[in-house]
Amino acid sequence: MELRDHTHPLVGILMGSSNDTDIMNRAYKVLSELKIPCEISVLSAHRTPDETIEYARTAEERNIKVLIAGAGMAAHLAGIVAANTMLPVIGVPISSGPLNGQDALYATVQMPSGTPVATVAINGAENAAYMAARILALDNTTLAINLEVKRNQKKQAILTKSPKGKNYGM
Amino acid sequence: MELRDHTHPLVGILMGSSNDTDIMNRAYKVLSELKIPCEISVLSAHRTPDETIEYARTAEERNIKVLIAGAGMAAHLAGIVAANTMLPVIGVPISSGPLNGQDALYATVQMPSGTPVATVAINGAENAAYMAARILALDNTTLAINLEVKRNQKKQAILTKSPKGKNYGM
Amino acid sequence: MELRDHTHPLVGILMGSSNDTDIMNRAYKVLSELKIPCEISVLSAHRTPDETIEYARTAEERNIKVLIAGAGMAAHLAGIVAANTMLPVIGVPISSGPLNGQDALYATVQMPSGTPVATVAINGAENAAYMAARILALDNTTLAINLEVKRNQKKQAILTKSPKGKNYGM
Amino acid sequence: MELRDHTHPLVGILMGSSNDTDIMNRAYKVLSELKIPCEISVLSAHRTPDETIEYARTAEERNIKVLIAGAGMAAHLAGIVAANTMLPVIGVPISSGPLNGQDALYATVQMPSGTPVATVAINGAENAAYMAARILALDNTTLAINLEVKRNQKKQAILTKSPKGKNYGM
Amino acid sequence: MELRDHTHPLVGILMGSSNDTDIMNRAYKVLSELKIPCEISVLSAHRTPDETIEYARTAEERNIKVLIAGAGMAAHLAGIVAANTMLPVIGVPISSGPLNGQDALYATVQMPSGTPVATVAINGAENAAYMAARILALDNTTLAINLEVKRNQKKQAILTKSPKGKNYGM
Amino acid sequence: MELRDHTHPLVGILMGSSNDTDIMNRAYKVLSELKIPCEISVLSAHRTPDETIEYARTAEERNIKVLIAGAGMAAHLAGIVAANTMLPVIGVPISSGPLNGQDALYATVQMPSGTPVATVAINGAENAAYMAARILALDNTTLAINLEVKRNQKKQAILTKSPKGKNYGM
Amino acid sequence: MELRDHTHPLVGILMGSSNDTDIMNRAYKVLSELKIPCEISVLSAHRTPDETIEYARTAEERNIKVLIAGAGMAAHLAGIVAANTMLPVIGVPISSGPLNGQDALYATVQMPSGTPVATVAINGAENAAYMAARILALDNTTLAINLEVKRNQKKQAILTKSPKGKNYGM
Amino acid sequence: MELRDHTHPLVGILMGSSNDTDIMNRAYKVLSELKIPCEISVLSAHRTPDETIEYARTAEERNIKVLIAGAGMAAHLAGIVAANTMLPVIGVPISSGPLNGQDALYATVQMPSGTPVATVAINGAENAAYMAARILALDNTTLAINLEVKRNQKKQAILTKSPKGKNYGM
Repeated sequence: MELRDHTHPLVGILMGSSNDTDIMNRAYKVLSELKIPCEISVLSAHRTPDETIEYARTAEERNIKVLIAGAGMAAHLAGIVAANTMLPVIGVPISSGPLNGQDALYATVQMPSGTPVATVAINGAENAAYMAARILALDNTTLAINLEVKRNQKKQAILTKSPKGKNYGM
Repeated sequence: MELRDHTHPLVGILMGSSNDTDIMNRAYKVLSELKIPCEISVLSAHRTPDETIEYARTAEERNIKVLIAGAGMAAHLAGIVAANTMLPVIGVPISSGPLNGQDALYATVQMPSGTPVATVAINGAENAAYMAARILALDNTTLAINLEVKRNQKKQAILTKSPKGKNYGM
Repeated sequence: MELRDHTHPLVGILMGSSNDTDIMNRAYKVLSELKIPCEISVLSAHRTPDETIEYARTAEERNIKVLIAGAGMAAHLAGIVAANTMLPVIGVPISSGPLNGQDALYATVQMPSGTPVATVAINGAENAAYMAARILALDNTTLAINLEVKRNQKKQAILTKSPKGKNYGM
Repeated sequence: MELRDHTHPLVGILMGSSNDTDIMNRAYKVLSELKIPCEISVLSAHRTPDETIEYARTAEERNIKVLIAGAGMAAHLAGIVAANTMLPVIGVPISSGPLNGQDALYATVQMPSGTPVATVAINGAENAAYMAARILALDNTTLAINLEVKRNQKKQAILTKSPKGKNYGM
Repeated sequence: MELRDHTHPLVGILMGSSNDTDIMNRAYKVLSELKIPCEISVLSAHRTPDETIEYARTAEERNIKVLIAGAGMAAHLAGIVAANTMLPVIGVPISSGPLNGQDALYATVQMPSGTPVATVAINGAENAAYMAARILALDNTTLAINLEVKRNQKKQAILTKSPKGKNYGM
Repeated sequence: MELRDHTHPLVGILMGSSNDTDIMNRAYKVLSELKIPCEISVLSAHRTPDETIEYARTAEERNIKVLIAGAGMAAHLAGIVAANTMLPVIGVPISSGPLNGQDALYATVQMPSGTPVATVAINGAENAAYMAARILALDNTTLAINLEVKRNQKKQAILTKSPKGKNYGM
Repeated sequence: MELRDHTHPLVGILMGSSNDTDIMNRAYKVLSELKIPCEISVLSAHRTPDETIEYARTAEERNIKVLIAGAGMAAHLAGIVAANTMLPVIGVPISSGPLNGQDALYATVQMPSGTPVATVAINGAENAAYMAARILALDNTTLAINLEVKRNQKKQAILTKSPKGKNYGM
Repeated sequence: MELRDHTHPLVGILMGSSNDTDIMNRAYKVLSELKIPCEISVLSAHRTPDETIEYARTAEERNIKVLIAGAGMAAHLAGIVAANTMLPVIGVPISSGPLNGQDALYATVQMPSGTPVATVAINGAENAAYMAARILALDNTTLAINLEVKRNQKKQAILTKSPKGKNYGM
């Protein structure tokens, strides 16, 4: 089935606080460029625990395929979501507060056996979207092509931007 | 007994330096919103050791119930206070100096057995106040209700702030 | 009311894995020495999320006054418990795995505003019990005396153990 | 299509050194329990760069769906594999050497935008397998059921192992 | 053979992203001051893997003697280059992102046995150039003299800049 | 002998780079306030090794009593000075570069047995001066009094600055 | 005055717990070898606060010249001692518990301005003794000679132990 | 000129303490296998400063081409050697003491501009030897071939050791 036929989101993006909007919108933007339908919400493991669990538990029946969860500090969001769904959950540690995201990285990636969170770099919301796209592309040829095109664009961008200053040592 | 009947502070907030005022006033503000009488002082474990110990030792007889102590760098304040009272002491590590509060976190939380300090996040003065409120609410129904109201406000704030941008991938 | 009149636990000790039993039993032991009724359970934020939330939500009506939660790695247990009760929650970061508890410390202490966890040292289950005792002693004279007696014992233990080797430099 | 019909591996497990076999075999074991066909190889980004790239580039045409790459120290393996395939790549940082896997964690998770690695905990090979299973289960009902069964087993294991020692404070 | 007789670069400077240009140009500047012919390019281990490997494999036959590779975050560039050449490779960890280059340092320096990267300080592109110069000076007397002259200039700069404020304690 | 009778410096302050002047002048200022004669110089363990060793070796015969050495990054200055004198050497780690002085702290404090460096806080040049003063005051009553006066001023400054906002919970 | 004429200790060694005896006895041993009269005690900033402060305040009148304080975890001992004396205080961070002494290092060295602690390496009790000796040698020629002799012994030990295996590459 | 014609060492290996012999002998062993004449000595920046500087200053005239220096803790050896020679200096941080070599890594790699140290992994003495070999091979065809042979052996070792367990999911 082609991406354009979907009338519902395939990826659900969550963030623990509206302060994380700037970072997490980067995931939204990449998914949109790849024409992957998605939705974005603020839900906190600590301040809206019921709504967070409800979201996680109903995501599959709403035909969401991948969840992305970004949070800072003692970032429990991705782990709690992963504990309440069988969908793949991608975690984005966010650098808020004085520890520069080191706390969020540990709290996201160091999950105990049985409840995996696929963690990307601190503030790496773009890569969360690319990872979601790789998963969805396993079953979607159009998306696979879109990803390949985007990869080539990035490659060409580097090759044309390379400094040309060469100095042959006079 | 209702909170309004108290004519003396129930929580004593201490900070190791007047530079910490901006951070520690957040504890004062939360306590005030919850209508918990409190007082705030600058006392240093190193520069005013006698006054600090005197404060800690007389707090209980002055009917203070919980102490909050914030300090940066080699943050000894909370530990020294805890060594000189039997009241629960909440420690707030403060991020002053180049180590971003990592030093204050270790110096506050890694207390040896027998002298506990209930440590909150780096610069987490608000949570120090919420923890004090939870302790006081064990014995005060009005406060318990105030806390519940505040928690619901935070929850509603998140639920109404959630980005509504949903993209169904055309 | 005296401690001996309680026919139900006042403190609930939770741990995220049965591997944490050795550490968390130290809290149980201190509470027992102080004659504070308590109960101890294994509940995981990730593997038994429903039971964990149920436990947290019903603790208050079961007349528990303080909760202690110990977990290792991406230690979400204390935070999730704190999000589902208004009782004071004390967190014990546990050193399991290669990061020596640094991950558990961050995941326990760096809680966002509104959901405090009173964190003690890595593996500091004894101090979690002492902190619970200080909170309960606010309203219990017998316990306050027990705590004072125990503190004096620790003090005397140090004073009598001090090495006596003095060398006057011949 | 059912898992048993596959005559080729769906998951390729790579490790950077045969010293990592004990850790990475845990992924193999979990996948086998879930009846997911897989293969396991030692390939180094530094010592066998050609074979590593060849493996990554041909994985998709060999019908592999997910790659798992474990490495220690300056762990480049997962990143290099991710740069040479469009399949989802899961990275396992391994704690070899004096830095306890902190080096491998950073070298695996901190990938630049466009080349994502789904990182799990240090030595978290089991979760790498569970994440692979979650991805494959998006398209495989039998596997989804197997995962659910396994999750329930883990849950029951905790609930039956919970210490029963309750002390009502005589 | 004198440096001025070279009509081709002796040092190839690579960087993983054009964002690193400001840092890596410092290497270019030092090499130019020492009259060492060099070239500078943007090549990414992840986004242009083929071109990076091609560059590394052909460097020796193009008479390049030393390679310098700078990259940030999960900095794989220097390691991948070192795996595809026998020339000495100098790695420059770059502080991009919230971890201040600690990630890049580990990803550059912690190379496994057999594929060495000569790592300099975070953002230490100047020292990468000086190290390249020391290597080239083993076989080039003019360069050795240039290096000695530059070292003496630095020494004199210190000795003339020393604060002269002396206070004899009135 | 009184401080005013000295016609030569009693404390030598060294710094590894003129960039460290702002930090190290704080030591100079504190010593001047305490009327301790001192001198301040820029000398580098790496760029002026001969002059640094010469300075260290002749300090004692020039009647200097204490040396203070501040440096950033791989801060070798204090250690090299300590290796070439028997005078007490106080080390000041300086936060230059992306590691915030963590590198300088380790390079200054982790000295092997036999060559001690008395290390103060990162950027703690004032305390280096106070430590020098404590050492000199062992043999100088006037200085001991000056130190006591200064300590009392600091204490009074805190006691008068303490926030007076007290809120009794209406 | 010669060392042998002292009938009282010149150095007081304190440790925060009798568990630290093995480490801190190394200071005692070095001082004894240098014929510096000293005494060693266990005193805790948290468990025996009165005795600790009393010790610090009376040390000077008992003719002690230098204090050495070793403690682990949230190591407050050296700082509290320094706050209650004008004698130079040398701090020894001790590696007890899972953070390997990193916590004790921060809690000892990151002292605020006005209350200096001369910190040595983690577990560096020997260097604490050598630093005390350097301070005492300012005023004691015999000790200065003893130190010089000991330094030469260490130097000779290295020069005679150097591996002689030289391989000229057949 | 062929390696076998050398009657003097081309590489000088230094270590700061005889405790480092086990680690640093690995460099000696690799160099010997590659038939590179070398010598190995214990010299300390702190305990034998004169001999260390003398060694560094005379290395070039003794026809040594590359220096390798390994040290632990506040590892000043490589930096001091680099400050006293123009030869390329390779630094090996050694994990001695409780900080696992993190201290030695910072003290070795974070060198200021103008005095480069080519740092390898913590305890990475083998790679120090391989880096020395790469430098020497710039001018020595036999050595270049030896290196290539060794690299191929390592590659074959991996390819033959790869676990063959493949499970096709019954």
